[in-house]
Amino acid sequence: MQHYPDSILNLIRRISRLPGIGEKTAERLALHILRAPGQEAEQLARAILDLKAKTRLCSRCYSLSDGSLCRICGDPQRDSTQLCVVEQPADMVALEKSGAFRGLYHILGGVLSPMDGVGPDKIRVRELLTRVETEAVGEVVIATSTSVEGEATADYLSGQLARRDVRVTRIASGVPVGGDLKFVDQVTLKRAMESRRDVA
Amino acid sequence: MQHYPDSILNLIRRISRLPGIGEKTAERLALHILRAPGQEAEQLARAILDLKAKTRLCSRCYSLSDGSLCRICGDPQRDSTQLCVVEQPADMVALEKSGAFRGLYHILGGVLSPMDGVGPDKIRVRELLTRVETEAVGEVVIATSTSVEGEATADYLSGQLARRDVRVTRIASGVPVGGDLKFVDQVTLKRAMESRRDVA
Repeated sequence: MQHYPDSILNLIRRISRLPGIGEKTAERLALHILRAPGQEAEQLARAILDLKAKTRLCSRCYSLSDGSLCRICGDPQRDSTQLCVVEQPADMVALEKSGAFRGLYHILGGVLSPMDGVGPDKIRVRELLTRVETEAVGEVVIATSTSVEGEATADYLSGQLARRDVRVTRIASGVPVGGDLKFVDQVTLKRAMESRRDVA
Repeated sequence: MQHYPDSILNLIRRISRLPGIGEKTAERLALHILRAPGQEAEQLARAILDLKAKTRLCSRCYSLSDGSLCRICGDPQRDSTQLCVVEQPADMVALEKSGAFRGLYHILGGVLSPMDGVGPDKIRVRELLTRVETEAVGEVVIATSTSVEGEATADYLSGQLARRDVRVTRIASGVPVGGDLKFVDQVTLKRAMESRRDVA
């Protein structure tokens, strides 16, 4: 690598710090940017700077937003009586892509993880409880991930919400659609069996 | 994707234009840059702009350089009587990594490709001939790739150089080291067989 001039080495080093990008890929990308029209490189650099300058958190649901309210919170068509609790903005985007939910979201910004010192005060639990109390929320759908921490967070939230006058649900877990049973892990299979439902 | 605010969408779009980067990876990288400290994003953007502003071609061998002469051409330790002809700067870097060559390079900037309208005047053939005439070159190693165009370019160059008082060689081609014969293509095997050498 040291056979490139410093300006290229510098970009290769910066790019290879990105997650999942090795040195080989970084080299390929840097050489592509070098060959690309100057305008393209400038727009890429500008987009990076703009991202940091313009993106902030929605004041209501804490998802990523360009303005004070995100697009979903500002949309009168959405059902504001349903609140879906997710860990991160990317989880919200995944749910939005599925088109399965038409309510509003609440981004926790993480999961409870006592081992890493993340208690209820480090994620947006208080903000969630405030929303449930002040907004006309009829149902809270807990859609944290099905990892150990995600499950523990879901348990904690349902405990906190149980005392409130609100329906609390949890997204179903089981065998993924299109999943071959022999490739599904045992814990998931056990869960799928326990959560089996009548079909006829 | 349209569920992200514009500033993020814009960066995702720009990143996914890079070669080999799909929309999913672009999303992951954009979210990483968003979470990373502001300084890191700024340095990445700066490195992109610097690359375009500072990188130029070495006036002697046409490899990428920060100055008028590249590091190799400016190194008195290198053997200036040997000239290795490659297609692109990345080929030079690959050879440098191998440590097999201690001479100077000449970057053609492409290969002959009549189908794409690339004739000898579109790559740096004239510059090569001038160097052979004006510099004290004893050997020209043609290290264009072993593709059809690379071979044709090598043939053309050796024809041009044959009239000059210089040794002209071509890098060997054959079965890669560590290569399993049953996975090597037929053309390579044929070449390896034709180029067999006495070992005892």
